[in-house]
Amino acid sequence: MIKVVIIGGGNLATHLYQTLSLADHIEVIQIYNRNLKHLKFVQDPELAISDSAKIKDADLYLLAIKDEAIAEFAENLSGKDGIIAHCSGSQNLNQLSKMKNYGVFYPLQSFSKDKPVNFKKIPICIEANNTANLKRLKEIAHQISDQVFEVDSEQRKALHLSAVFVNNFTNHLFTIASDYCEENELPFNILLPLIRETVAKIDTLPPYSAQTGPALRNDQKTISAHLEMLNPDRKKIYTILTESIQKVHGKKL
Amino acid sequence: MIKVVIIGGGNLATHLYQTLSLADHIEVIQIYNRNLKHLKFVQDPELAISDSAKIKDADLYLLAIKDEAIAEFAENLSGKDGIIAHCSGSQNLNQLSKMKNYGVFYPLQSFSKDKPVNFKKIPICIEANNTANLKRLKEIAHQISDQVFEVDSEQRKALHLSAVFVNNFTNHLFTIASDYCEENELPFNILLPLIRETVAKIDTLPPYSAQTGPALRNDQKTISAHLEMLNPDRKKIYTILTESIQKVHGKKL
Repeated sequence: MIKVVIIGGGNLATHLYQTLSLADHIEVIQIYNRNLKHLKFVQDPELAISDSAKIKDADLYLLAIKDEAIAEFAENLSGKDGIIAHCSGSQNLNQLSKMKNYGVFYPLQSFSKDKPVNFKKIPICIEANNTANLKRLKEIAHQISDQVFEVDSEQRKALHLSAVFVNNFTNHLFTIASDYCEENELPFNILLPLIRETVAKIDTLPPYSAQTGPALRNDQKTISAHLEMLNPDRKKIYTILTESIQKVHGKKL
Repeated sequence: MIKVVIIGGGNLATHLYQTLSLADHIEVIQIYNRNLKHLKFVQDPELAISDSAKIKDADLYLLAIKDEAIAEFAENLSGKDGIIAHCSGSQNLNQLSKMKNYGVFYPLQSFSKDKPVNFKKIPICIEANNTANLKRLKEIAHQISDQVFEVDSEQRKALHLSAVFVNNFTNHLFTIASDYCEENELPFNILLPLIRETVAKIDTLPPYSAQTGPALRNDQKTISAHLEMLNPDRKKIYTILTESIQKVHGKKL
């Protein structure tokens, strides 16, 4: 059995605990959080600890904590032989360079506390300080996911930034549409089939080829009509994204 | 049987033909296009016509043609008793006010030529010049869709504009992420599970509540690091959407 200690008490720590606990060849031997209150999700209360001095020897320590806390917390583990891996998209591998064995174990997904996730389909991005640790981390990741990728620190940062575009910014466009529907006494739900189709399309087409709409057609009449309907903040977003579509697709501005 | 004539030869006309032909109480008696070449998808070649003078009497004429062509083409039908309905999201009902009976039959979806669609789940937005025609159009729409909405011209324009945000702009964010991944030698597919989750979340949460990310957390360190990684065009988009998230969610700028 591979012995794992999880550090953290947030969404990611919760989901990692739930998934790793169910994996065949993995045993979660401890979960640490400074505040035991945040570890109520741990089924066996003996596993939950709040004293970092009591952290046991393990094969892997997963730091599912805030970016700012990674380097500092790792000092508590500097005597350990097991692999110490952080789970952050934006932090360099070398944040852990004072450890003996270290790496990155970054699941590329947006986690919500109460929404169960199927880790099998979540890409896990792996990096490590040497090939032996890389191999080991990959093996462990494969215990819970079918999609394991070797990704270096620069690429991982690029992925994290891409995730802001496809998740955070996309969701904000949904928020704007939802507010705008509400102002016009329309149920936002009426847009859900279109949203689902938008995503279904890129299963088979690259998004570049799936592009449609007034910006791509350079339909100035519709674009002007739309701009007149928007408040200044939304107008700015509409304008800049329309210009970007036209530039990327080589349309005249 | 309800007799329907379809005007048009594009994506929407194709999908309407395919769906209406299969409906129990509907008979598509003709499809008109100026150019017969665009009507190759019509299974019974006798139904395809290119001479507007030969358009038969029907209960409903569906104008699945370009916005600019609606009013002009409708003049060919001004003697008809059947309901003449356009299928545009952005055009006013009164584009057809010279007709006897008229309305709007707007399916809120993005259609691709070769991708089959399930009309049952596509919202159809209905409007008409009187309650009798409204009722009739609703009955017909219910033959092919479970989601039929009464939507006036102003609301329909608001929906059409919302669709630009949730479909066109969202797809463009995917394009930017895809280009950026390619530049960093990463497969865009690695982002698909996150994209699917972004959409799955708003099935249960309003998008406002589903928002996450550095902008919402006001995580200036990550925001600055991201901005340094982007070219000027992408930086502009990142900045404006970050500011919008912070404004909409009441964060300090």
